[in-house]
Amino acid sequence: MGSRAEKNIKDYWWKWMTQMQDNIVGIDAAIFMHPTTWKASGHVDGFNDPMIDNKDSKKRYRVDHLIETFTDQLKAEGKEDEAAAIISEMEKADAAGDLPGLKKIIDDNKIKCPVSGTANWTDIRQFNLMFSTEFGSTVSSEDENNKVYLRPETAQGIFVNFLNVQKTGRMKIPFGIAQIGKAFRNEIVARQFIFRMREFEQMEMQFFIRPGTQKEWYEYWKQARLKWHLELGVPDSEYRFHDHVKLAHYADAACDIEYNFPIGFKELEGIHSRTDFDLRSHQEYSRKKMQYFDNDVDPETGKPYGNYIPYVIETSIGLDRMFLSMVCAAYTEEDLSTTEKQDSRVVLKFPAKLAPIKLAVFPLLKKDGLPEIAAAIMAKYRSEFKCFYEEKDAIGKRYRRMDALGVPFCVTIDHQTKEDNTVTIRYRDTMKQERISIEQIGEIVSEAVRV
Amino acid sequence: MGSRAEKNIKDYWWKWMTQMQDNIVGIDAAIFMHPTTWKASGHVDGFNDPMIDNKDSKKRYRVDHLIETFTDQLKAEGKEDEAAAIISEMEKADAAGDLPGLKKIIDDNKIKCPVSGTANWTDIRQFNLMFSTEFGSTVSSEDENNKVYLRPETAQGIFVNFLNVQKTGRMKIPFGIAQIGKAFRNEIVARQFIFRMREFEQMEMQFFIRPGTQKEWYEYWKQARLKWHLELGVPDSEYRFHDHVKLAHYADAACDIEYNFPIGFKELEGIHSRTDFDLRSHQEYSRKKMQYFDNDVDPETGKPYGNYIPYVIETSIGLDRMFLSMVCAAYTEEDLSTTEKQDSRVVLKFPAKLAPIKLAVFPLLKKDGLPEIAAAIMAKYRSEFKCFYEEKDAIGKRYRRMDALGVPFCVTIDHQTKEDNTVTIRYRDTMKQERISIEQIGEIVSEAVRV
Repeated sequence: MGSRAEKNIKDYWWKWMTQMQDNIVGIDAAIFMHPTTWKASGHVDGFNDPMIDNKDSKKRYRVDHLIETFTDQLKAEGKEDEAAAIISEMEKADAAGDLPGLKKIIDDNKIKCPVSGTANWTDIRQFNLMFSTEFGSTVSSEDENNKVYLRPETAQGIFVNFLNVQKTGRMKIPFGIAQIGKAFRNEIVARQFIFRMREFEQMEMQFFIRPGTQKEWYEYWKQARLKWHLELGVPDSEYRFHDHVKLAHYADAACDIEYNFPIGFKELEGIHSRTDFDLRSHQEYSRKKMQYFDNDVDPETGKPYGNYIPYVIETSIGLDRMFLSMVCAAYTEEDLSTTEKQDSRVVLKFPAKLAPIKLAVFPLLKKDGLPEIAAAIMAKYRSEFKCFYEEKDAIGKRYRRMDALGVPFCVTIDHQTKEDNTVTIRYRDTMKQERISIEQIGEIVSEAVRV
Repeated sequence: MGSRAEKNIKDYWWKWMTQMQDNIVGIDAAIFMHPTTWKASGHVDGFNDPMIDNKDSKKRYRVDHLIETFTDQLKAEGKEDEAAAIISEMEKADAAGDLPGLKKIIDDNKIKCPVSGTANWTDIRQFNLMFSTEFGSTVSSEDENNKVYLRPETAQGIFVNFLNVQKTGRMKIPFGIAQIGKAFRNEIVARQFIFRMREFEQMEMQFFIRPGTQKEWYEYWKQARLKWHLELGVPDSEYRFHDHVKLAHYADAACDIEYNFPIGFKELEGIHSRTDFDLRSHQEYSRKKMQYFDNDVDPETGKPYGNYIPYVIETSIGLDRMFLSMVCAAYTEEDLSTTEKQDSRVVLKFPAKLAPIKLAVFPLLKKDGLPEIAAAIMAKYRSEFKCFYEEKDAIGKRYRRMDALGVPFCVTIDHQTKEDNTVTIRYRDTMKQERISIEQIGEIVSEAVRV
C-alpha cells in the first residue's frame, strides 16, 4: 500500500511538472557521477558534520545534537538564559568551523555521554555525509582514483546535464528540468520515523532563468509550489513558509514550505534561489562552457541578451516526507458511538488521486451469482484504476478494512443488482451510501481520481 | 525523451503486474539492506569474477574475457579446434574455482595484454561484484561492522519482506510481489552501450507457490511473460527462449527471453524457478521462520497442506535492456524517394503506449488566430496524455522532427479549422493524413495510448 501511495505521489508530481507545464522536461541522471562533480558542488569539502566519540561507550555523536540535548535539559530546569548563551556560543563556533571552540563548550559544561555517563571524549572531527565506494575493484591497491560517491542530492545531475538537455530539447530560457530519484546521506543519526533517512527519494526541479530575474521567479515558484500542496485538500493552516536567515553558500534566497508534522512544523519542500553558483562552478572544474545564448532582445539596449550563465531557482521535495505528511494528514480516528452502542473507526482520508486503491468491489454474499457480477465489474474497471475484490466477512467489516487503507469508494453487489443493474456505492469520508447504476461507477471514480 | 520512455515502460510493467493481476502486490524495498542478507543469498561468498592485472599496463581484465578474446582470434585464423579446447579447459577450471588452473591457460598460450603487449601478469584474484560502503562514518576506525553493500539485485528485498507482505496484505498462496528499483554491480567492464551497466534498474516479480507446483508455474510465467513482450507489437521472430543448461545454485530450472539486439540474441528477461533456496537461507541466517500456513485441503490426504516454505518463480527484466530493445525495434530509416526527388526519414516506431510524447499540435501559421486554436487543443488534452506544441518551421519539417522522437500523432490547425472545427491528423507510421473533428482527437489518441 505504501509503495502504491508513494508511486501515486511521484506520478502526480511528475505529471504536474513535465506534462502540465509548457517548459519543463524530465531527466533521469546517474546515482554514480564523476567524483569531480562533488568537488565542484562543494560537497567534498563542505558537506560535513562535526562529530565526537566517547572513549568509554565508543558511541559517536553529532556535536550539535550532543550540546542541544544538554541545553534542552537546562531549559527543562528553568535555566533558559544559560541554555541560550551556550547555543549562541555553539552557533558562532560552528559557523567559523572552530572545532576546538566547540570542544571547549563540551568541556566547560562537563557534558557527559548519555550511555557511559563519562566526559572522556576524543577530539572533534569533521565527517563527510557522502557515502563513498570504489569502482573497478574492491581491493584497489594502486589506483586511488577509483573512489566514487553516491549522490547526496539529485540536483547536480541536472546541472551537469543542463546544456545537453537545453540543446537536444531545443529549450528556451526560462525552462526547467525535473527529476525524481534516490539520494544517499551518511546520517549518523537517522531518526524521526521516515523524516530523516540515509536512503531517500527526492523530487527536484531546477528552473533556469536570466540573471536579474531571480527575485520574481523565486516568488513565482514559492507560490506555485504552495498552491500544489494546498490543492491536495489539507487545510492551509497545516503549511507555512519558513525563510532561511542563514543561507547556504550557493543561495541568495531560500525558504522551506513546512508542514505541521506531529513532531512540529518541519521542512517538506525547499525553494532556493541558487544563483549561477552551480553552473559556474561546473564550468570552472570541467573547463566546459555552461553558457546559454539568449536571442531575446533586451528592451533597454535594443540588442539580444546574448551569452550568460543562467541563474537557477530550485524546488526540492522529499518524497518520503511528502508521504509522511499525507499519512499524518489522512490518519483519523472517529468516534461513531450512538446511544445504542460504542463504535469507532480508523480512516485514512487520503486524497482520492493519491489513494493506493481507488475502488473496492464487494458481492454481498458468496452465492446467487453475486460474485460473478462483481467479477464483471472488476473486469470492466480494473484497467482504468486500481480495484480490489473482497468477498470475506460482513459488509460492515469490509468497509472498515477499506477505510483503514484509505479506499475512497466501495460498491456492494446485492440481489437487486440482478434486477436493475444498480449497486450501492459507499463513500469513505462521509460513509454516505447511494444506489447508482453500474455505468455510473466509472464516471464517479474516474472523475475523483484524475490527477 | 529517454526518461519519459523509460517511465512509460515501468508504468506499463507495474500496471500489468500490480493492477491487472489478481494476486500480485507491489513493494519498494531498500537499496541498503542488512549485510547478512547478502551472506544468506550467497552474494558475499559467491558473487565473484576472477580478475588479472597486467603489471606493465596496470590494466585489469576479467579472466574469461581475456581468454575469450584470444580464442576469438584463433577462430578467426581458422583454428576452431584449438579454440574449443581452450574454452573447454577454461570452463572446467572456472567451475572448479581453480585460479592457478586458469592462470596456467594464460601462461601456456602466452596470452598478452592488448594494451602493453606483454605477458607480465599478476596472479588471478577473485573480485566481488558488490559495491560496499560504510555506515556511520567514513573513517570508521574501530568498528568493522559498518560495512554495507549496495544491493546487486532487487530480489532479496522481496524475500526478506515476504512474510510482512503476506500477513499485512492477507495474501494467499499462490501470490506475487513485484518491485521496480535500482541495483548496482561493480562490473569491471561495463559495455555494449546500456546493455551492461554498473547502475541499472530491475523490474522483478517473485511468485510464491506450493512446493511441487513449480513446473507448471514456471511454464505459466514463461508463456505469460513472452506474451507480454509480443503484445508490444515487435515481430515474434525477434524473441526466443534460451534455456539455461548450467543452473545457478538457487535454481531448478531457468531460461531467458532473448531479444535480437544488433549485438545478437541476448538476455532481455529471465524466468527462474528458484525453489525455496532464498527463503530457506534467510530463515537459517535470521533464525526467523519463513513459513506459510496453507489452509487449502490436499485432495490426496484430505487434510490442509499446512506449514511449508514456499517455492518461488521469478520473472526479472532489466529496464535499461527493455528500453534498448524498444529503441532497436523502433529505429527505422525509410527511403521516401520519388521520381521527382530524393527523400528519406528517420522514424522511431515506438508502440504508442510507450511513446514519450503522444500528440503534437501544430498551427499551420503563426497568425490568423491559429496558434490560439492550437493552444485551446493543448489545454483540452494535455491532462489526458503528453502533448507537444510547435509553431516553428514548415509543417513537413515539424513532422520529421516528431517522427524522429516517435510521436504517433500530429494534428495541424489551418484556416479551415476556424470554419468547421476540423484538423488534419497525421499518422507517424503510415504518414497518412485525415480530416477529423477536434472532438475525435481525444478518442483516437486515448484509445491508442491506453496501457
